[in-house]
Amino acid sequence: EGTSNDVADPASMLLQLCGRHYYIAPGAIHSASLKKGRGCGYGPLGLDLKQNVLEQWWTSVVRSRAQVFGISTLHSSMDGAAVKMIQGDAVRDMHSQTGLTEEHLAERLRQILQHKEFFRTSLLQGALERYVPSMELVNRKLPFGLAQTGLCYQPETADSDAVGCSSEVTEACLVWFCSPRTSSQWLDYWTRQRLQWWRKFALGPSDFSVRNVSGEDLRQGIPYGVEVLYQFPWGTEVLETLWNLGDTELLNTHQHSKAQLQCKDGRKVVLPHVIAVTANMDRGVLAYLSNSLQHVQKMDNKQRLHQRKVLKLHPVLAPVKVALDMARGPTSELRQVCEGLLQEFLEVGISAWPGYMDTIASMERQHAKYDEMGVLFVLTISESTLETGLLQVRNRDTTIRETMHISEIKPFFLKYISAAGKV
Amino acid sequence: EGTSNDVADPASMLLQLCGRHYYIAPGAIHSASLKKGRGCGYGPLGLDLKQNVLEQWWTSVVRSRAQVFGISTLHSSMDGAAVKMIQGDAVRDMHSQTGLTEEHLAERLRQILQHKEFFRTSLLQGALERYVPSMELVNRKLPFGLAQTGLCYQPETADSDAVGCSSEVTEACLVWFCSPRTSSQWLDYWTRQRLQWWRKFALGPSDFSVRNVSGEDLRQGIPYGVEVLYQFPWGTEVLETLWNLGDTELLNTHQHSKAQLQCKDGRKVVLPHVIAVTANMDRGVLAYLSNSLQHVQKMDNKQRLHQRKVLKLHPVLAPVKVALDMARGPTSELRQVCEGLLQEFLEVGISAWPGYMDTIASMERQHAKYDEMGVLFVLTISESTLETGLLQVRNRDTTIRETMHISEIKPFFLKYISAAGKV
Repeated sequence: EGTSNDVADPASMLLQLCGRHYYIAPGAIHSASLKKGRGCGYGPLGLDLKQNVLEQWWTSVVRSRAQVFGISTLHSSMDGAAVKMIQGDAVRDMHSQTGLTEEHLAERLRQILQHKEFFRTSLLQGALERYVPSMELVNRKLPFGLAQTGLCYQPETADSDAVGCSSEVTEACLVWFCSPRTSSQWLDYWTRQRLQWWRKFALGPSDFSVRNVSGEDLRQGIPYGVEVLYQFPWGTEVLETLWNLGDTELLNTHQHSKAQLQCKDGRKVVLPHVIAVTANMDRGVLAYLSNSLQHVQKMDNKQRLHQRKVLKLHPVLAPVKVALDMARGPTSELRQVCEGLLQEFLEVGISAWPGYMDTIASMERQHAKYDEMGVLFVLTISESTLETGLLQVRNRDTTIRETMHISEIKPFFLKYISAAGKV
Repeated sequence: EGTSNDVADPASMLLQLCGRHYYIAPGAIHSASLKKGRGCGYGPLGLDLKQNVLEQWWTSVVRSRAQVFGISTLHSSMDGAAVKMIQGDAVRDMHSQTGLTEEHLAERLRQILQHKEFFRTSLLQGALERYVPSMELVNRKLPFGLAQTGLCYQPETADSDAVGCSSEVTEACLVWFCSPRTSSQWLDYWTRQRLQWWRKFALGPSDFSVRNVSGEDLRQGIPYGVEVLYQFPWGTEVLETLWNLGDTELLNTHQHSKAQLQCKDGRKVVLPHVIAVTANMDRGVLAYLSNSLQHVQKMDNKQRLHQRKVLKLHPVLAPVKVALDMARGPTSELRQVCEGLLQEFLEVGISAWPGYMDTIASMERQHAKYDEMGVLFVLTISESTLETGLLQVRNRDTTIRETMHISEIKPFFLKYISAAGKV
């Protein structure tokens, strides 16, 4: 693919890169799905990236807060009105028996419909249902929140533009219960928090923005909301929504008397308002991928212009922290050093890439590949490593190659990654 | 519930305890599902326990191994034969329009059946499909593995004993590709590894065992397999299966020529054999809960016999590492100390329980509650803490109360938890 082509279609350039480097599974459905902000088959790197994003969300929203509790609800339920599941063999039977009379078909259909299981389309309802049993967790004191991440099933209608995509979306959802008098302040608070969070891991934070939703965009009966947006090269999309739902949904969900739903706001007793904060984490992954992809131009020593693509994912999010390569030399000895180092890294949780298993390409080409994968550091073990213990460390972002002693490497990486997480 | 009742029905005793202490959501479906080794609605503690178990599995099988790659596949697919999904509103429409003629019904049914999406029933197929694109990850060198954790949908037929349960199971699956000549050694290797892993976190390791599957238990066409079993008080159940699938499933999945599926075994080129290692993580959670529940008898100073239940979950798995309580005294000052400490714990990833938010019960009763929750340590902040900085630390397993200085607490816990993880 040439440069002009890349500029013309940044989406397919990004998705091709993701396919090439194990971020997404091969196949048109996967790139089409991710492009539309839907779940896809992720490869090892894409899975790690998504897990890292989800992990950071969980730390920020749940683990670091005393008043937010993580929950997990069933994906399917008996009484939803969402997406129905029927057993495949029942359907297959009907397909194969083409000679069925209409009556038989109708009878079969009724049988199938008796199996009443529905797949959730969002996480909100499940969290609202947990409100009552959760009140005692906090001794009925407002505010508090219930949080969950997980798969939702959002099939598209034929006239939507996501036909041929997967129907799966991984949502991360916080449902925040607070007193009515503070709900608009809390909406502001969470909007700031969430925007800050998205921007924390961004290379270009200004591509993330918020907008108030009002007028025609407003969902029926809901006072107001905020959207967190990401400006993709191909258009702006919604990453996350924050809605002030008032008490309507809570009352709809629970057929209790109002008194049974009330909590304490200081000395007063009130029916809480609900703020629903819901992020699409598949689209979030795509946003970070898109945001971190840089085109770097570089003149070589023969005055030729080269363009490199570098996936400058935040050190905390980058799926591979370090790749291990070997230079030419005594293969089995070098490999042994590589394997030993790799094991050391993996044991302390530094994700490492066994580049030495690959057929040896030129170092230039290997580095270009690792840049596209977003690998933070590349270690090259050479013959001199065997003698002196020194090896080369290349930094993705500075492209500078340093010589370090093998004993310094592990503490250096641990310090680097932990420092990056604290920014 | 009295003691005799507990002994008579250990299952409902355990499930009641789980419901009482936020391990599972209230409602009969959740306890019935968990009892049958199926997913249920988890409360904050149950979710943390399950996440901890999954995290340990991932570390053991994927993160610490250079040759195992994590993947994530779609939950639903277009060509499976598993569980079909149809849109809820289509079904609702049919329910409401009772006057539909048979012809109309048949037409509707055909429309619904056109929407061909199926929900996965296991993780094996998805991993097998990724075999070809994954070969280049390892430069076509055997052995290597693909791993995934995630939800599978396993609806029960009417004559099974899991009616009224959820159909969801969280599986953790490793698909290992190796040369045919080494496959039985690898099956042994993984059996040892997996049994060791289950036992590592157990209070009573001997309740976990393995058995070879042969004769009538054998799946059709499959040479042999192994099951990891857990001996629940109410019977023995299968936690995990390890199957040597030969090359049959791989050939069935890929319509490629054999040559395209071949990998390198040293200098030879072979068609790999497949070992599928699949654990039911919901049942795993139940096994650890059951395994760690101890009945401790204790004589009080009036010579009365008391029975305590203690959930002695492994320190690495225990969802709450420390609970913070306050003794009677100047409420707002004590609370401030509690909140400060809690925040400090949460920031370094020590999950802490805000016990001080609860209405103050007797210390005896609080400790009994925390023991049932499996809380590792209880801190009590009292009036003297404000003056001297000293507080009481109670250990769940020894029941010993120590006095420590507030500045020593955080490093002490961090060291304790990290040491427990290394055993």
